[in-house]
Parts: sequence; C-alpha cells; structure tokens
Amino acid sequence: MSQFWSPIVHSLTPYVPGEQPRINNLVKLNTNENPYGPSETVLAAIRDAANDSLRLYPDPHASELKGTIADHHSVKATSVFVGNGSDEVLAHVFMALLKQDGPLLFPDVTYSFYPTYCKLFGIQYQTVPVNERFEVELEDYTEAGGAFIFPNPNAPTGHLTSLDAIRAQLVRHPDRLLVVDEAYIDFGGESAVPLTRDHANLLVVQTMSKSRSLAGLRVGYAIGHPDLIDALERVKNSFNSYPLDRVAMVAAVASFKDEEWFRTTCERVVKSRERVSAALQQRGFTVLPSHANFLFVTHPVHDAAELALALRERAVLIRHFRQPRIEQFMRISIGTDAECDKLLGALDEILGT
Amino acid sequence: MSQFWSPIVHSLTPYVPGEQPRINNLVKLNTNENPYGPSETVLAAIRDAANDSLRLYPDPHASELKGTIADHHSVKATSVFVGNGSDEVLAHVFMALLKQDGPLLFPDVTYSFYPTYCKLFGIQYQTVPVNERFEVELEDYTEAGGAFIFPNPNAPTGHLTSLDAIRAQLVRHPDRLLVVDEAYIDFGGESAVPLTRDHANLLVVQTMSKSRSLAGLRVGYAIGHPDLIDALERVKNSFNSYPLDRVAMVAAVASFKDEEWFRTTCERVVKSRERVSAALQQRGFTVLPSHANFLFVTHPVHDAAELALALRERAVLIRHFRQPRIEQFMRISIGTDAECDKLLGALDEILGT
Repeated sequence: MSQFWSPIVHSLTPYVPGEQPRINNLVKLNTNENPYGPSETVLAAIRDAANDSLRLYPDPHASELKGTIADHHSVKATSVFVGNGSDEVLAHVFMALLKQDGPLLFPDVTYSFYPTYCKLFGIQYQTVPVNERFEVELEDYTEAGGAFIFPNPNAPTGHLTSLDAIRAQLVRHPDRLLVVDEAYIDFGGESAVPLTRDHANLLVVQTMSKSRSLAGLRVGYAIGHPDLIDALERVKNSFNSYPLDRVAMVAAVASFKDEEWFRTTCERVVKSRERVSAALQQRGFTVLPSHANFLFVTHPVHDAAELALALRERAVLIRHFRQPRIEQFMRISIGTDAECDKLLGALDEILGT
Repeated sequence: MSQFWSPIVHSLTPYVPGEQPRINNLVKLNTNENPYGPSETVLAAIRDAANDSLRLYPDPHASELKGTIADHHSVKATSVFVGNGSDEVLAHVFMALLKQDGPLLFPDVTYSFYPTYCKLFGIQYQTVPVNERFEVELEDYTEAGGAFIFPNPNAPTGHLTSLDAIRAQLVRHPDRLLVVDEAYIDFGGESAVPLTRDHANLLVVQTMSKSRSLAGLRVGYAIGHPDLIDALERVKNSFNSYPLDRVAMVAAVASFKDEEWFRTTCERVVKSRERVSAALQQRGFTVLPSHANFLFVTHPVHDAAELALALRERAVLIRHFRQPRIEQFMRISIGTDAECDKLLGALDEILGT
C-alpha cells in the first residue's frame, strides 16, 4: 500500500552502499575506508566535547569549521560550504546547481550515486564513455547543454585527470559548471581547489571520510566561488539548519591541526597500494593505475563475481559492481599491511598459486 | 552572478533558526533547548566512541538505534525512521509523503520551517487559522485535498491537541495522511505513537533535541506504518546513505537507557514552566496555556519587539516572530531556576515593577 506516497517515490532507485557487516575479524576492503584511525588529537577533541553543551544546538553556520577549511586551502570562508558527509554536499550540489536546461554529463563508469541524485531531483543526464583504458577524457564532453561532474581520481577506476585537462575544460566551457568530486585526491592527486580562485565555473567537493579517517563522523565540504556557495546555503537552509553536530565539527577542526598524522597515514596507504598492485600483477591480475586508496583489478581467467564470493568465504570483503563494462572488475580498498597480506593469501588459496 | 544556479534556488526563502551567539553569561531562552544537559551515561558513551572505529562508516540502516527506539515506543523496528535531527526527518517527510494532488494543510501559526520545505519541494499548501485562543482545531481542516501536518504541542503557542481529536481526524479522513510533529510532547503531552498501530494514515515525528537534551547531536525520528517508513527510506537512500554518525547514534541509544534522568529533567522543566507562567501573569502578561518547554506570552501595554530588545540589552535572549497575529507575542524557553530568575529580574527592571 502506497497511497500516501508522493509520486516521485515510486520512481526512485536508491543508492546501495557497501556493506557494513558486524562480523569481527573480517578483512573489510569494500568501502574505501582508511585503515588507520583518526589521530589522538582528534579523539581527545571528541572526549572534550562530551559535556553539558550538547544540550545546545550547534552553530548552524559552522563558522569555525569553515574558517579552518578555508585556512587549510588558502581560500576565503565565503568560498566554503560544509555538509553531513560529501554525499549530503553532493545532494545539495545536484539540487542547487546541476538542474539546468541541458543534460548533466558524467562518465559511464563512475560513482553510482550520481544517477540516483538525478532521479531524486528530476535532472536529465547523459553519460560519456570512459576510454578503453577506463580514463575520463574531458575533451569527449562535447554534448551541448548543462553542467559536468566527475570524481578525480575517478571511482571505481582510480584514474587521475590532470589539472591541465581540468583547466582546459573550464576555459573551453566558461558558461557551464564543472564539479570535481575529490573524495580520493589526497592519495596522490593534485587538488583543483587553487583553480577555483580564477574560475567561477568550478566547484570542488572533498570529504573527511577517506584521507582524514573520519567516515564515522560524516563531514564533507565544497569549495568554489561565493555565488556557488550561496546557492548551496540557500538549499541547505531550506532543508536542515544544523546538519553538522557539535562533536563532528570539533573533531573535523582538530583533524586539520594534525597534518603530520594526515600526511603519514596517506603515505602509508600509497606505499601499500603500490605493493599490493605489484603483488596482484604477479598473480596475473590486470591492475588499473590508481591514484586513490583502492585498486580496480580484473583477472584474465577468473570471473570477478566468483572471485568476490570466494574471497567473502575467506572473510575478505571487496566490492564487485554488476554493471556493464566493469562486471569483470573488483574494487579492492587498501587496508593495513596485515589486511593486504590476508587478501593476497586468500587469493593464493583461490587461484591455487 | 547566478548563471549556474538551478532555477529553484532563485525562489527559495530559507528558514532562519534562532541565534546561537558565542557570548558567555547569556541567558539563552530563544531556541527551546533543555536547560539540563545529557546524563553522565550519555557522556560516557560518547567518550567510549572516541576510538579507532571512527575510520569506518556508520551503519547506514542505524539498526541498533531503530531497535532501541522501537522498544521504547513498543512498535516494530520497521515502523521507525531516523534522521539528522527532526528537521531532516521532516524534510524527507515533506518530499516523500506530502507532495499530493491537493494542498497540504497546516496551521497559520506554527513551525515556520513548514512553508520553507514546501517551497523547496514545490508543494502546494494552505494554512488554516488557529482559533482566537490560538488553538489548533482539527475539525477546521475541511479543505478537500492533500495531507495534514501540525506540531503537538504546537509551536510557538504551546497548545496541546488531545489524542481524541487526533483519532477523530484520522477516522474522518482515512485516505489522507496526518503528520503529528511531537518535538515537545514529553513536557506534558500524550504521544500519538500508540495510534500508529491502528491508523496507517498517521506518522509521528519526534526529536532528541528537546526533552533528551541532545540538540548538539542531531537525532530525530518518525514512527508510522512500515509503508510510510519505506517511502522515507527510499528518499533518504537517494539523498545520503549515512546521515547519522557513530557518536550521535551511541549517544542516542544511551539516552534511552537512562529513563530516570529523562523523567527527572522533564519534570523539572515542567515545574519551572508553571512557576514562570504564574510569575509572568503576576507581572501583567497574558500567558497561553503551554504543554511545551516554552511559554508564549503577550503584554497588554508593552510592545513585544521592544520588550525583546530590552531583554537582549540585559543579556536575556528570547524569540520574537515578526509575523501576522503573533507580532505582539514573545516565545520564552524555560531555563534553569537561575535563568528564569534572571529573566524575571530583567522584566522587573524593564517594566519598572
């Protein structure tokens, strides 16, 4: 019975996130979380925030956090928007900025939440095929019309688009908005944030869930021209005044004060990625070049879905997408050294190597 | 410059929450927060949650929290939806359930976020005047058409609608959805949650921000027939997989385990409300009967806006709405005994009593 539903509800195809199973001793390499937890500075800030002030609403403008992010990226606070994880930031971006006369363009192989947002907000879109090496080629975005969005590095491929290519696209289409979703940028990419100073048609989205180890706290942000931020604020303030709670905000601020931890853990992830990439290639896998905290791999003989199942039976969780062009690929998040070794050991068992 | 905005953005009228000033020693009676903070049980749970697991995403289904809420209200977990504060829950309710063929009906004097949601989601609405005693009379909701929503107790009036009146409305209009927004129900009202078992056209929304002292953590929920919850989940999962962070969820669960604290603090607020109500009446104010943690008051001689300003000059913050019918009223949240005394002392100074 659904007589009370708004009409839109019937047509939605909700996003399905990677599993968060409650099984101990699982090697969880399925949702691109950071294998290293937040620093002691962050944990201490959270413990400090456990006090009487939780009875009060948070700052609806998140001024301190915005100021911290602005300082970190050398932009003005009026160029910063914050939200409940980059997924909420993206939801507001889709509603506030991506419903245009022409269709929104994004890669055919990309973050699978994009078409979901489009359905929710009634946004027309068209996908542009990544090339045969699974690379985003911005020159291919020739369709007349609306805005562009793509993740850089792209998910689930790990492919990095250069700043030169992004700059060229901004210049080619000064009247069309380009959103760069940089969830994984800190694992070896170069952020497009500095380009926001010269290009009013660029919005960059980042998250604290990956490189800053705070997936459990839900903090994401966007950086761009204040007019773009204004649109996001209008939608946010028509939706929920206080999306970020007091604890999440102090933890996020503290995270930016511990750059050493941030740098060191990112470097460890990158080092492990290179080791696992080499080890997988030794085992016959094709591994796409990755600038993210995951690898996208395929095996010439073994079926990806079967491999994923066999790994699961050995308590190793990775992500497999039943989707055209990539159904023979597995996305493997980079874990600790011990987790990576368990993955490789399980594969040896399965492949009989 | 707004050439990149989606068309909807131009027409929005964002909600303006009560101020959250960063001034010490302010008597803050403007946003209906609980004067008593969360219990030690809750604070200990937050401190415990400050650990390595914050690197992991939260449970997107919030199963433990839903189970706890379901147990507390003696409903099934499939009847519970949770969100980032009841404002986010309401946003999803408006989008998923209140966009119907006929106009949505709500009181002319009520929570001022409702028309904002309507603009955001393109929902037609019509307001129904509260009566001359500022009471919601559900029999007046005769306009053919869509769904109904009202807060019970109503904000900012504090007026409580009886369960009998709600039941009668549900029976009168079995084909129309009634949403009861119970943000303030624990300060002397009777919840309509038990009616959800027999009435598939009833959805009840509650928050942990008021009676449970957790405004700083952003947890709200809705209870109703699983088909209604299904619609909310579909929209939520098309918007943001993880709106509730790990810390907020463990704190919320812990709160339900400390019923003694909850009961005691609610009782203290109610007792203070009655004392302040009597004291204000002694000072010549008309005080509407309140079942919430605030009073809605007017003075026969003194202008409400001027009183609000004079109180502010004395570091006492209350809320004044520049709005037809209620511009001569002030909404005063109930504080600690000391805060209430400061309010009364400041009024004595201003009124010269």
